[in-house]
Amino acid sequence: MTQLWGGRFSGQTDPLMRQFQDSIYFDVRLWEADLDGSMAYARGLARAGIISEEEADVLQDGLDEIRAEFAQNRFELKAGDEDIHTAVERRLGELVGEVAGKLHTGRSRNDQAATDTRLWLKRQIVRLRAQVVMLQQAILAKADEYFNVIMPGYTHLQQAQPVRFAHWLLSYGWMLQRDKERLDDLTRRVDVLPLGSGALAGNPLGIDRPFLAEALGFAALSANSMDAVGDRDYLLEFLSWAAITQVHLSRLAEDLILYSSREFGFVAIADAYSTGSSLMPQKKNADSLELIRGKTGRVAGHLTSLLTTLKGLPSTYNKDLQEDKEPLFDTVDTLMLTLPITTGVVSTLTVDASKIYDSMDSAMLATELADYLVTKGMPFRQAHHLVGEIVRKAIELDQPLFSFPLAAYQQFSPLFDRDVHQWLTFNRAADRRTSPGGTGESSVREQLESLRALVGEKEDDE
Amino acid sequence: MTQLWGGRFSGQTDPLMRQFQDSIYFDVRLWEADLDGSMAYARGLARAGIISEEEADVLQDGLDEIRAEFAQNRFELKAGDEDIHTAVERRLGELVGEVAGKLHTGRSRNDQAATDTRLWLKRQIVRLRAQVVMLQQAILAKADEYFNVIMPGYTHLQQAQPVRFAHWLLSYGWMLQRDKERLDDLTRRVDVLPLGSGALAGNPLGIDRPFLAEALGFAALSANSMDAVGDRDYLLEFLSWAAITQVHLSRLAEDLILYSSREFGFVAIADAYSTGSSLMPQKKNADSLELIRGKTGRVAGHLTSLLTTLKGLPSTYNKDLQEDKEPLFDTVDTLMLTLPITTGVVSTLTVDASKIYDSMDSAMLATELADYLVTKGMPFRQAHHLVGEIVRKAIELDQPLFSFPLAAYQQFSPLFDRDVHQWLTFNRAADRRTSPGGTGESSVREQLESLRALVGEKEDDE
Amino acid sequence: MTQLWGGRFSGQTDPLMRQFQDSIYFDVRLWEADLDGSMAYARGLARAGIISEEEADVLQDGLDEIRAEFAQNRFELKAGDEDIHTAVERRLGELVGEVAGKLHTGRSRNDQAATDTRLWLKRQIVRLRAQVVMLQQAILAKADEYFNVIMPGYTHLQQAQPVRFAHWLLSYGWMLQRDKERLDDLTRRVDVLPLGSGALAGNPLGIDRPFLAEALGFAALSANSMDAVGDRDYLLEFLSWAAITQVHLSRLAEDLILYSSREFGFVAIADAYSTGSSLMPQKKNADSLELIRGKTGRVAGHLTSLLTTLKGLPSTYNKDLQEDKEPLFDTVDTLMLTLPITTGVVSTLTVDASKIYDSMDSAMLATELADYLVTKGMPFRQAHHLVGEIVRKAIELDQPLFSFPLAAYQQFSPLFDRDVHQWLTFNRAADRRTSPGGTGESSVREQLESLRALVGEKEDDE
Amino acid sequence: MTQLWGGRFSGQTDPLMRQFQDSIYFDVRLWEADLDGSMAYARGLARAGIISEEEADVLQDGLDEIRAEFAQNRFELKAGDEDIHTAVERRLGELVGEVAGKLHTGRSRNDQAATDTRLWLKRQIVRLRAQVVMLQQAILAKADEYFNVIMPGYTHLQQAQPVRFAHWLLSYGWMLQRDKERLDDLTRRVDVLPLGSGALAGNPLGIDRPFLAEALGFAALSANSMDAVGDRDYLLEFLSWAAITQVHLSRLAEDLILYSSREFGFVAIADAYSTGSSLMPQKKNADSLELIRGKTGRVAGHLTSLLTTLKGLPSTYNKDLQEDKEPLFDTVDTLMLTLPITTGVVSTLTVDASKIYDSMDSAMLATELADYLVTKGMPFRQAHHLVGEIVRKAIELDQPLFSFPLAAYQQFSPLFDRDVHQWLTFNRAADRRTSPGGTGESSVREQLESLRALVGEKEDDE
Repeated sequence: MTQLWGGRFSGQTDPLMRQFQDSIYFDVRLWEADLDGSMAYARGLARAGIISEEEADVLQDGLDEIRAEFAQNRFELKAGDEDIHTAVERRLGELVGEVAGKLHTGRSRNDQAATDTRLWLKRQIVRLRAQVVMLQQAILAKADEYFNVIMPGYTHLQQAQPVRFAHWLLSYGWMLQRDKERLDDLTRRVDVLPLGSGALAGNPLGIDRPFLAEALGFAALSANSMDAVGDRDYLLEFLSWAAITQVHLSRLAEDLILYSSREFGFVAIADAYSTGSSLMPQKKNADSLELIRGKTGRVAGHLTSLLTTLKGLPSTYNKDLQEDKEPLFDTVDTLMLTLPITTGVVSTLTVDASKIYDSMDSAMLATELADYLVTKGMPFRQAHHLVGEIVRKAIELDQPLFSFPLAAYQQFSPLFDRDVHQWLTFNRAADRRTSPGGTGESSVREQLESLRALVGEKEDDE
Repeated sequence: MTQLWGGRFSGQTDPLMRQFQDSIYFDVRLWEADLDGSMAYARGLARAGIISEEEADVLQDGLDEIRAEFAQNRFELKAGDEDIHTAVERRLGELVGEVAGKLHTGRSRNDQAATDTRLWLKRQIVRLRAQVVMLQQAILAKADEYFNVIMPGYTHLQQAQPVRFAHWLLSYGWMLQRDKERLDDLTRRVDVLPLGSGALAGNPLGIDRPFLAEALGFAALSANSMDAVGDRDYLLEFLSWAAITQVHLSRLAEDLILYSSREFGFVAIADAYSTGSSLMPQKKNADSLELIRGKTGRVAGHLTSLLTTLKGLPSTYNKDLQEDKEPLFDTVDTLMLTLPITTGVVSTLTVDASKIYDSMDSAMLATELADYLVTKGMPFRQAHHLVGEIVRKAIELDQPLFSFPLAAYQQFSPLFDRDVHQWLTFNRAADRRTSPGGTGESSVREQLESLRALVGEKEDDE
Repeated sequence: MTQLWGGRFSGQTDPLMRQFQDSIYFDVRLWEADLDGSMAYARGLARAGIISEEEADVLQDGLDEIRAEFAQNRFELKAGDEDIHTAVERRLGELVGEVAGKLHTGRSRNDQAATDTRLWLKRQIVRLRAQVVMLQQAILAKADEYFNVIMPGYTHLQQAQPVRFAHWLLSYGWMLQRDKERLDDLTRRVDVLPLGSGALAGNPLGIDRPFLAEALGFAALSANSMDAVGDRDYLLEFLSWAAITQVHLSRLAEDLILYSSREFGFVAIADAYSTGSSLMPQKKNADSLELIRGKTGRVAGHLTSLLTTLKGLPSTYNKDLQEDKEPLFDTVDTLMLTLPITTGVVSTLTVDASKIYDSMDSAMLATELADYLVTKGMPFRQAHHLVGEIVRKAIELDQPLFSFPLAAYQQFSPLFDRDVHQWLTFNRAADRRTSPGGTGESSVREQLESLRALVGEKEDDE
Repeated sequence: MTQLWGGRFSGQTDPLMRQFQDSIYFDVRLWEADLDGSMAYARGLARAGIISEEEADVLQDGLDEIRAEFAQNRFELKAGDEDIHTAVERRLGELVGEVAGKLHTGRSRNDQAATDTRLWLKRQIVRLRAQVVMLQQAILAKADEYFNVIMPGYTHLQQAQPVRFAHWLLSYGWMLQRDKERLDDLTRRVDVLPLGSGALAGNPLGIDRPFLAEALGFAALSANSMDAVGDRDYLLEFLSWAAITQVHLSRLAEDLILYSSREFGFVAIADAYSTGSSLMPQKKNADSLELIRGKTGRVAGHLTSLLTTLKGLPSTYNKDLQEDKEPLFDTVDTLMLTLPITTGVVSTLTVDASKIYDSMDSAMLATELADYLVTKGMPFRQAHHLVGEIVRKAIELDQPLFSFPLAAYQQFSPLFDRDVHQWLTFNRAADRRTSPGGTGESSVREQLESLRALVGEKEDDE
């Protein structure tokens, strides 16, 4: 078959050039969006009187047949099908004859490709959003299950203050909540129809763009045709979203890799998400989590890739923009794995409360001691310094803070009294943090409920 | 002065370590936010009964004095001031004595630094948003000024179809409109108060976080203290925003660098935004635009930087997070220059309509010929191919399309008729694109008005 | 088939997890390297007395058969083949029975995968290097062909000083020369054998690593087994190389896109490397060059990707490292297209010397005037300023510098004399730059010869 | 003072533009290189007969005076000093009068800036290399100190096989060895003189470039003037080097952060490299290591930044290139801190051998069991599977592998014999790995010596 654009050319294309420029290898994924777009455009042409309703019917029948071929995996690519648009138009010609040549009237691959990509992405966003919700639900369920487990809260990977396991896990629920909000925000900018922008200057045929938008389910029309064909903001924004989301997953993965190490031993990753070693028979590795963490590089790389490609590009369409698809597709595919795998890992996680308890350092109660002194009237900074000295002493004596006798405390300050030991339990330390967002039982309970309300029940979200 | 955290330590800090970890060199910029945060927190402590109202007054007086010192550029940093928080607390102690040691009760630098940064960024966003608006206004004004200039519209940097200069320029106005919407969206996630999260576990003193939020003008409270101290999403999102915005500016810069080259000659950049050469006396270089384009790398780099830093970080606060400030500050500073410089360049731009006219290739009318044939009933794909041959002929004969005689056209197809030459003017070609977003006069007029409505009048936006 | 590591496990793997962690989809490309490595290892085991020579022969026969299966494209993947190593071991067991189970003695997938990757990359580097050389040869040939064409040399995309076309084009030849040197340098760090490092601790079986290195053609042994299994420096270094090389190609592409625009018109890209438009019949776009430019983002993204993945990873092998292959493979594939396509574009380029001549601005002779005054004794800075004023005058009068009468020059300075007009030709201006590396005829001739000597003749390089 | 390039201009520069384009704020760091370059150029001009030897002496005296002013920190910047070159030329004019105006003859800021940057970087590389060596020396010393400590070797952060502490630490010594080699390689490409390339076309004055190279200590001349002024490869290569080196430091930091956590407890970071918490008195955080890890993002970001800036830039000099300096300077500054801080951390590290011993899991001996069976004739794969089952049993019984009675082993296989328990010690397991690069005592001793030989003695390197 001749190319869509062949008339003006005399020379032959270098065969390697073919391979270099053809995008059919990856953009074939857009087939459904491409058919939907063409269907709507055919109706639009009829509406504008460019073709007859009968011709539109013929085109529709042809497109329906192609849809069936793709759906049943019997569409055949041929040499010369440089992209999905060409392939569909070529096949349509075979099926319905010359009228196929009318479908592209006033349309360019520039507005067509942008339309296909946006349509496709909108659909992927629905799937990705559902995955985010399912991960939140897994987090909520697991936080509930181990609600009463107190564990060390870390800063700088050093035990800092006791926190509820649920509090720790819910922190990821809130990150995902922001991810969901960001996804909703950016969807508004994906949900804009470029079709009817032509190659760059707009459509001269009186095509009814609001009709096209409605037919394809777009919420808005692009406002400037030159912008519309060259705009890839919505992809940059989506890739940024994905990179931030992956950063969240990578941090959860890191926490869980640490917590499932022999040295921590707080949690066990289910066999379903672990693998062994080809050499060492005893190994059980949290491969799933390592891959989740590692794939963050991949997504960040895709973002860098598109930013670099777009930097300094002249306006409207340049062929460089064809480089937008592969990072997009791979990013969607990556998150369609990392999100459900994380959901699986979280859902099947078991927590070893007693190992956690054994590992807790009484020095995490140091802030309690300081707060105790503050309630007795000592300025915080002074209390902080004094307790620092107590901790140093405790390390020297290798004695936990809660087994220091009162007299020992009183050597540091006369403000210490009998009630000091009541303060020195991990549970009390956690439960004192009752401010909104704190790790106290009431706060975490409230937090869990409010996140549950935002996430919705399982049945509502699919 | 001793460090805030010294009590437990016996060894000495390596002097190089001082330099390595101190952040005062850059975070001193947060002084105003830090003072605001401390002021609110002092009131919060009084409200919670941790300190008396009188003590709060004393703290407030001290903080006011420090504010004056900073404002009048007479605040003195001292050795040991490792960050802005330490510096303020040290100075407060000098000014008001021991009561200063109460201000940090229940607060950690973890929630304090996050609060300062968010407060600071919120204020910068207001300034940046105003700059975006001013650039849009400059674009609107210039689009108006040269509304009737028709120029070559390019795809692949080859002349494609005639477009209005206003249409081209407005395409950037719409990119900026999206930038503004994105900024508004992300602001909702910046506008969240972490104060009251403590080091990671929450506040145990019954601090009234809604009161703090109101006092500091935050719209919402962070929902989970562990998330709150480790969350840098709002910075990633802001850096993504900045990178996308810079990509837009880089594309405008590229267009203008091309258009102001001798070979294009479409526009002249004002002397105010050009420089010369140290060696070549005749040179006039659009340095401003080249720097705008070049600085896109800088901002993309900052985004990569923070994504890399955050990848795989254990949850809550780790010192790695201190690396968030410099990319943030530099990004804000960069856009506070690139945006107004772009506004300056656009405002002072002059357009050479006759040079533009001279450069226009009649082959841009090829689509008109094809559309002409379509109106006569030829399927578009066939028309496209036929016109391709006509163009080839025109190139061989070195003759513009509009001076081909009718007979010549009719050799290609009997559908050509006397009216064909009416179609072959750049103005008509542009003005036929009347669909929404097209380059036709009516569409562009409408577009200009609708963008103007979204941007608002000059007086409204500052 | 059971997994290589199954014995210790009781739970089932999540089917999605399978898909998530399996690398066979991409690492099947390593089949040849994997077979080579296994062949050498079998001989090594025999040498160390772990298996008999007869067993080694059996293994070799089995591996030869597998090699034939791959070569003839009849190797069948089966469920459970999680990576190329598993697939080969599984098939080997089918072919030769239990002895296959001896091949992995003392070997781990950690050292095996690293060995395969290095072996594969070494072979790709040979191919890539040849492509760099071919591009240099194309540049040399084209520089020769148009040696006497003088063109505007640009800085800031403004005409600066006249240069030889050959000089401009050769500048890319030198960039590629550095690329080749860098490739040679990094090859020394790729050319290191990790085999014999086991999972991380080394080989306990007295395997003769120098023998393995020799058998596989490696120049050196890894010095530390823990480093060996976790080291991906050689990939980072290769990706950096690729990114720098792509930056060079992107700059050449940018120059050629500009020079082949209607407005410049200096060169024509062959039809073989151009494409048309689906909507606009007249278009001829330099798609090849735009893709070359655009793909720079892709390669830069891959570098970011691996850097991000490696950041902060615990030492030795972590599953995150599996993410190294896809960016590597795609980078090699990309450059195995961008390099020969660039070679094709350069080889088939035609230069329009008369269009170039017509476009040259006499103001490029301003430096000549300044140099003239310097030879007459005026300090350069003063001459530079004075000539600036002359140029301003020339612009006002719209008169080229070479047609200014002597009297006009003398109004600016009495140092101007009759000989001034001799200085004012583009050829003389170019040819005066005779310093090494300058654009003078003799310098460029020398440059061309010295690059040719470094590049070698065509027959020598393949 | 008037600008270097003012003659041709009539309009005024926008004051903001000043701030936008001036580079003096950062490039003032190049003062020494700039003076050295000017000194050499003055001599070169005299040699070429452009100025007299007396004039060269006058220039030299002026430059010497400026050198003293900078060295004594009394050089005064003035309004109009847009960059270091302008500042020096302005001051030179003040000091020596009109002859200063001759210094720039035939030179451009394009070749001057490139020369300054290369000269400066060459000097920084010497400092950085010395820092790498010092870190290697600290590693060697610490490996020696704890040579006999056996610790768990990890893959996937799970205990895998016992290794020597020295082996683990030396793995970083080898990474740094590669860093050093890479630095040496790239230095050859930094060590190239661009001076004498002019703005882009070369030098017309017969300047003796080999003389300039010798005077400034450059090993080679740039071969093409257009390449020379636009080439930033050497910076990309340096930034890549820095990013790879930082990745190494980040991995060491991650290991040490883990090993110094309470849960691992293998090492203690000296107080000199730790800090405390403003809220929690007991905290001792390895801030130094977290910052080292975090700063990897910064350096990776700088690399992305310059790659993005260079992508698609037209050849020769464009103002975008001014964006090369800040990432370079910040990268050098960062590594001049992260390297010595790491050296400090390593030098002062203490290892808790008994805590390490307590933490070791007998399951790390599983590979020993498998190897044992292999020596008795069982194929490895079968042995691997069988030992997997033994390990499962051991976990069920909660019994270490070395305390399994022989009878229990024999239930799994009759190949087990009395000697099996001799195999089951961590020391023997480690010391069996005697292949080059393995963790056996002899191998590690050899490794240590061979690295020491490559690194050299302390006195030799400074």
